[in-house]
Amino acid sequence: MTDRYELTMIDAAMRSGTAFRPSVFEAFARRLPGARRYGVVAGTGRFLDRVAEFRFGDAELRFLRDHRIVSAELLDWLADYRFSGDIRGYAEGELYFPGSPILVVEGTFAEAVVLETVALSVLNYDSAVANAATRMTRAAKGRPVAEMGSRRASEESAVAAARAAYIAGFDATSNLAAGARWGIPTMGTAAHSFTLLHDSEAEAFQAQIDVLGVGTTLLVDTYDIEQGIRTAIEVAGTGLGGIRLDSGDLAEVAADARALLDSLGATGTRITVTSDLDEYAIAGLQASPVDAYGVGTSVVTGSGAPAAGMVYKLVARQGDDGAWVGVGKRSEDKASHPGEKVAVRRLEGGVAVEEAVLVTDHRATLDAAAAGGRALQVPLVAGGEIDDRWLGHGGVELARERHAASVEELPVEAHRLARGEPAIPTVFR
Amino acid sequence: MTDRYELTMIDAAMRSGTAFRPSVFEAFARRLPGARRYGVVAGTGRFLDRVAEFRFGDAELRFLRDHRIVSAELLDWLADYRFSGDIRGYAEGELYFPGSPILVVEGTFAEAVVLETVALSVLNYDSAVANAATRMTRAAKGRPVAEMGSRRASEESAVAAARAAYIAGFDATSNLAAGARWGIPTMGTAAHSFTLLHDSEAEAFQAQIDVLGVGTTLLVDTYDIEQGIRTAIEVAGTGLGGIRLDSGDLAEVAADARALLDSLGATGTRITVTSDLDEYAIAGLQASPVDAYGVGTSVVTGSGAPAAGMVYKLVARQGDDGAWVGVGKRSEDKASHPGEKVAVRRLEGGVAVEEAVLVTDHRATLDAAAAGGRALQVPLVAGGEIDDRWLGHGGVELARERHAASVEELPVEAHRLARGEPAIPTVFR
Repeated sequence: MTDRYELTMIDAAMRSGTAFRPSVFEAFARRLPGARRYGVVAGTGRFLDRVAEFRFGDAELRFLRDHRIVSAELLDWLADYRFSGDIRGYAEGELYFPGSPILVVEGTFAEAVVLETVALSVLNYDSAVANAATRMTRAAKGRPVAEMGSRRASEESAVAAARAAYIAGFDATSNLAAGARWGIPTMGTAAHSFTLLHDSEAEAFQAQIDVLGVGTTLLVDTYDIEQGIRTAIEVAGTGLGGIRLDSGDLAEVAADARALLDSLGATGTRITVTSDLDEYAIAGLQASPVDAYGVGTSVVTGSGAPAAGMVYKLVARQGDDGAWVGVGKRSEDKASHPGEKVAVRRLEGGVAVEEAVLVTDHRATLDAAAAGGRALQVPLVAGGEIDDRWLGHGGVELARERHAASVEELPVEAHRLARGEPAIPTVFR
Repeated sequence: MTDRYELTMIDAAMRSGTAFRPSVFEAFARRLPGARRYGVVAGTGRFLDRVAEFRFGDAELRFLRDHRIVSAELLDWLADYRFSGDIRGYAEGELYFPGSPILVVEGTFAEAVVLETVALSVLNYDSAVANAATRMTRAAKGRPVAEMGSRRASEESAVAAARAAYIAGFDATSNLAAGARWGIPTMGTAAHSFTLLHDSEAEAFQAQIDVLGVGTTLLVDTYDIEQGIRTAIEVAGTGLGGIRLDSGDLAEVAADARALLDSLGATGTRITVTSDLDEYAIAGLQASPVDAYGVGTSVVTGSGAPAAGMVYKLVARQGDDGAWVGVGKRSEDKASHPGEKVAVRRLEGGVAVEEAVLVTDHRATLDAAAAGGRALQVPLVAGGEIDDRWLGHGGVELARERHAASVEELPVEAHRLARGEPAIPTVFR
């Protein structure tokens, strides 16, 4: 999980005697993708797992040697690689804005630069999913939303997507691996193929109810929706848990289905809709008698913004004299703010008003209260030791709570779905 | 890598006695994403690897048991799971059109339905990347294109993306894992952080040349491009292999850079450009003195179409009387063509004119010549045995060749970048 240039840079820096200069890298986003109002940090727990296991094994070293990609000296260094520095950053689930110093990695240049690709791969994908999911969660206004897009993302992305969507407020996933690895609640009943496998729709419904009980959700649109609903209630009785609609104009179909269910006496049977939903479609169904949403493609592909656009940049390093120097690229379109940074979200009456990013001396501590806000960075790794609060199922639950609390602080205009400016300005001080 | 409903369906089908009905599933795309002119099948070799290793281990079975997701009977069946059926499909790298029967999976309902998510995850992601990459390859008109988007895709997606882009004509990748696993050529020299690590740009360039030789490519836009180029030639001499430009208006910057290099006598120094390129930007640089392209975000996220939109549907199954029945969903917006299918690309004078999809009896053989074209499906798995031609590095090279040959057959209008109709019609017979 490494781009070749990371290794060629270390090789060359070893030659020039700069490879082990103490350095600070920062991950941040220059802008919010899709002109959204806020972003959601996701993937931190997964990144920390990657750091813990980041090693160059025999197969990797053999490949690098056989293809003459790196020097013998660097091969020796890679064989012993273990990140021994410090990492702090925004808590997973926290919101971010343009320029927020989301991750701050401190170590030698060599040990920090080699994490560039893996840090960005995790943060850019997981945050892209969370950025989309948070909008869908809000658009659903309390109705449950399930992630069911595994088939529209590559295999491991699917697991990561289920986790990121849950952090951003989704209630469940279809992905069993996400349930097993991260404790995300799983759901799922049947596809059209199950109905088509049977000689009649009634036989398929009966088989499902025999195993899952009448509380299950029946997919009623394989042939004709009206007949499907009638058959479902005939087979299950009026105590049927739910029906799922996966085609047609969902507002119209849901209204007709609700009326029919009610007329059949199935007033408690819930309606789940699942066809090509995104945040706009969910918002458009607000007035419809829909009880739950299932979202696929659009959440796992970031709903139009499939990568969060974060970058990982060297912002400070020591010189040979031991003095720290803030550094940054100077080109107009990609300039960055040199120097190590801390960040606070300034609140007024409990409402966020500003993302304050303070360029500080090396390892300066922050008095968030004095800065008028809530400190945003937390320690993640100290001297190579990973803080295990952020890992596993517990880390996911903490992130989900952090996300919900931070969203509550936002001004109301942050929840407009239309393109626009960030909900609060980022101010560098 | 399984959606929960696959297992609940098998459980219920076991109860109704239909789980082991011989069945045929088909993967196809209802339309081409982004209104493109053709699609590229990618991921087949990766999917076959997944089939080979598709097992339910102790940890998975324990999770399913502890969470009461499936019955004891199904747990026993899953513990022994091994796909024993047949799979045929479009060769990897082949083109596809709406309705092309890209993958045909035949086995019992249970053994075939459980591959649904993994088949679609692989095909939908890898084909989305290949769909974008083939357009970039054509837009580059012979100039080399490298994939360097690992950081904009999740970790394993990054490796799959490098592979898919190579199949669709890219020349190299930054991703070392893709080099090690799939034999894709790797490339990469240095990032801005390498220049910023050093006390001066000249020192950074010297360090890089010391290790990689004067044939290397120097990144010249960290501070000021003109000064960067002058410094590069001062340090490396006029034999410098290349420079890389990663910011600004690339057409303008490349023209200025070429003029300056020539005036300094570095007439053989090549120019690589890399900032936010997609197929449109590459086409726009056709007249510019650019020697090579590096593409990141847009190729790994499918350039606006991050999932290929393929679905996996039951199209035929046996009844209890042993007769095969073609089946399909009937709803208007998602109707599918029932029945097992073979496909032929009809050619006239070597140019593709039609995707002919023939609904056939079970296991009918096809006389492609009689059908007036080239047969598109190849055997992939027979009786659970995977044809290893399609695996590993060899499979990737075959796919790259297949892709290049199939693209050559397309009519010229297939290479328009604008949205439009598929280059050839799909006709069901």
